[in-house]
Amino acid sequence: MDKKEENREDEEQVVNPWEVSSSAGKIDYDKLIDKFGCQRLDHSLVHRVQRLTGRPPHVFLRRGVFFAHRDFNEILDAYERGDKFYLYTGRGPSSEALHLGHLIPFMFTKYLQDAFKVPLVIQLTDDEKCMWKNLSVEESQRLARENAKDIIACGFDITKTFIFSDFDYVGGAFYKNMVRVSKCVTYNKVVGIFGFTGEDHIGKVSFPPVQAVPSFPSSFPHLFKGKDNPRCLIPCAIDQDPYFRMTRDVAPRIGYHKPALIESSFFPALQGENGKMSASDPNSAIYVTDSGKVIKNKINKYAFSGGRESVELHRKLGANLEVDIPVKYLSFFLEDDAELEHIKKEYGVGHMLTGEVKQRLTQVLTEIVERHQTARAAVTDEMVDAFMAVRPLPNMFN
Amino acid sequence: MDKKEENREDEEQVVNPWEVSSSAGKIDYDKLIDKFGCQRLDHSLVHRVQRLTGRPPHVFLRRGVFFAHRDFNEILDAYERGDKFYLYTGRGPSSEALHLGHLIPFMFTKYLQDAFKVPLVIQLTDDEKCMWKNLSVEESQRLARENAKDIIACGFDITKTFIFSDFDYVGGAFYKNMVRVSKCVTYNKVVGIFGFTGEDHIGKVSFPPVQAVPSFPSSFPHLFKGKDNPRCLIPCAIDQDPYFRMTRDVAPRIGYHKPALIESSFFPALQGENGKMSASDPNSAIYVTDSGKVIKNKINKYAFSGGRESVELHRKLGANLEVDIPVKYLSFFLEDDAELEHIKKEYGVGHMLTGEVKQRLTQVLTEIVERHQTARAAVTDEMVDAFMAVRPLPNMFN
Repeated sequence: MDKKEENREDEEQVVNPWEVSSSAGKIDYDKLIDKFGCQRLDHSLVHRVQRLTGRPPHVFLRRGVFFAHRDFNEILDAYERGDKFYLYTGRGPSSEALHLGHLIPFMFTKYLQDAFKVPLVIQLTDDEKCMWKNLSVEESQRLARENAKDIIACGFDITKTFIFSDFDYVGGAFYKNMVRVSKCVTYNKVVGIFGFTGEDHIGKVSFPPVQAVPSFPSSFPHLFKGKDNPRCLIPCAIDQDPYFRMTRDVAPRIGYHKPALIESSFFPALQGENGKMSASDPNSAIYVTDSGKVIKNKINKYAFSGGRESVELHRKLGANLEVDIPVKYLSFFLEDDAELEHIKKEYGVGHMLTGEVKQRLTQVLTEIVERHQTARAAVTDEMVDAFMAVRPLPNMFN
Repeated sequence: MDKKEENREDEEQVVNPWEVSSSAGKIDYDKLIDKFGCQRLDHSLVHRVQRLTGRPPHVFLRRGVFFAHRDFNEILDAYERGDKFYLYTGRGPSSEALHLGHLIPFMFTKYLQDAFKVPLVIQLTDDEKCMWKNLSVEESQRLARENAKDIIACGFDITKTFIFSDFDYVGGAFYKNMVRVSKCVTYNKVVGIFGFTGEDHIGKVSFPPVQAVPSFPSSFPHLFKGKDNPRCLIPCAIDQDPYFRMTRDVAPRIGYHKPALIESSFFPALQGENGKMSASDPNSAIYVTDSGKVIKNKINKYAFSGGRESVELHRKLGANLEVDIPVKYLSFFLEDDAELEHIKKEYGVGHMLTGEVKQRLTQVLTEIVERHQTARAAVTDEMVDAFMAVRPLPNMFN
């Protein structure tokens, strides 16, 4: 294949931390795994998780929402040997209200924390959003705190969880690691990984080490000092992979373990499956602030249906499940495997109509969102301060 | 002049924070002022300093060691109006022992602090040296602390002086300003200013904002919070000008005063006047750790003389003062104007011989170095901690 053709093919699908798009409409995850060089998370790994933790694997794991990994098997080896590891995930606080897609890594991370009984650090990259979204420092920090409330509402264990904002926490041991990483990465390298141009500001060029260093336990001396260099596992959406490819490249050169990754696909927009949801179109997503009425209306009006044009045709052909958003959403959030299979079967052969599936989805999402709203309303400023306090967590591995 | 010729001319003289060289052997400071776009520090400004401070101008000022500036007149206007300003200078701790050239900005800064009774922040860029000189984080920090002792030995007022290492102090308000600056500077811009290439590591690209932000009082909330945005004056060698051209460009865009500068020429090597001294050749400089015997030997053996080949010729033609290093060194460090004039006159007409001038220089430098060694020996670790403590300085403007 000549260079031109190769480039054209590359352009068909763009996945990086700031853009997810595909000219084919749908992300080809197999291609992405090949391109990024990560591994598919197969059934044997899922079974191993079940065996090691003694609990059923999370719905996101058994249904392939988290579908790719890097060295997750090594984390499980370490766990089996009794070696320590910790979890690291994060969020760029660019908006006040989260949508359901934003909750996915946190819901999954909570499961991992509970199942493996491990400490967790959550980075709020307010510095990144200040630079990329042209928010003021103050507004980025305010959003970080608001987002922290939503994150805490996911139910993390305060005795095992440290949430930090970069504007608050960068410095000291963390900054030293940033410098150590920066020394190992050339400008050409970050251009190759992230596609920066000469007209991009230097804040963008400086940022990748900030997201890299929570992968190294020495960035958190209040947690891990003298703790024998535990490994790090990062649950995240696969668009964050470029940061951690860079991090994994640098890690052994500065004396650290490569962080392991467990990576999810993207939660589709209501309008259909082509990448992530858009903050600029509030009708493209269900927000955790939406009321039951809004959720019902959004699903009925906007959720792309695989049902047929007429009831007669639908009864005859059945729904096209491949493109049906209500079924996709249920496969993320309906926990009951038997019920999900039943719906897919009945809907797929035309016994169930779109309206019925949408009604069930409305129930499921309303329940999740209302539960989240109740939990978030109970999160006080004191709780935010407590989660974000730089403090030792003496029982974090118990 | 065509592009090629212009480039060739540019190459004749390179002055940036990491390289000072000139194919002509000697730096052309007039050309440098033109190229950088700063202003010559003329006699009227020196007289104004004398009038405003009520004390004789420092020898470095009246003899043109500090020869260029940016907006120094505005600092004097502010001072005359009773407005506050503060001083900012620094050092990159790349070696254990300082030479006399390193002391020049500190000796001058101490004079400014005493004359204007103003607070001073001193940045030790251990992060920079870790990245440029490939020192470990720990070694850079050790050198920063050792250098701090030499700086303290210059006699700064602890009630008005805050010394900080980047590895210790970057974070919080300081980091926020780094991000604000980074957002305003493109990669192309730093390439234009500093000449980075794609093979340079991103630590170099990230660093200029670190040296920029001590120019902004909000980077030091423990000193200047609620203090009405005082102006900043930076005494430094002119090779640091690129950092502050960048800083001055950004400052008004993020709501700060442009920092003012007062800039020195370079202290020449013993072997003659072509730029800065070289750390790789210990015989190119007098170190503050040298003994009297070593100083005498270095001056006699290596100090480039403008004297003539034979005593007869010398008596007839006199010394060439333009190239004579002992006279240059005396013009930096012999405070007595009348004696300096006397030496220049007698030596210039051949009445004095090189040996006599070298003997006087040996006396002068030995006295300075011994005084420094005594002062440095008295600097305890507790004093370093005290100067480097993040603390308010309630009497810093008195």
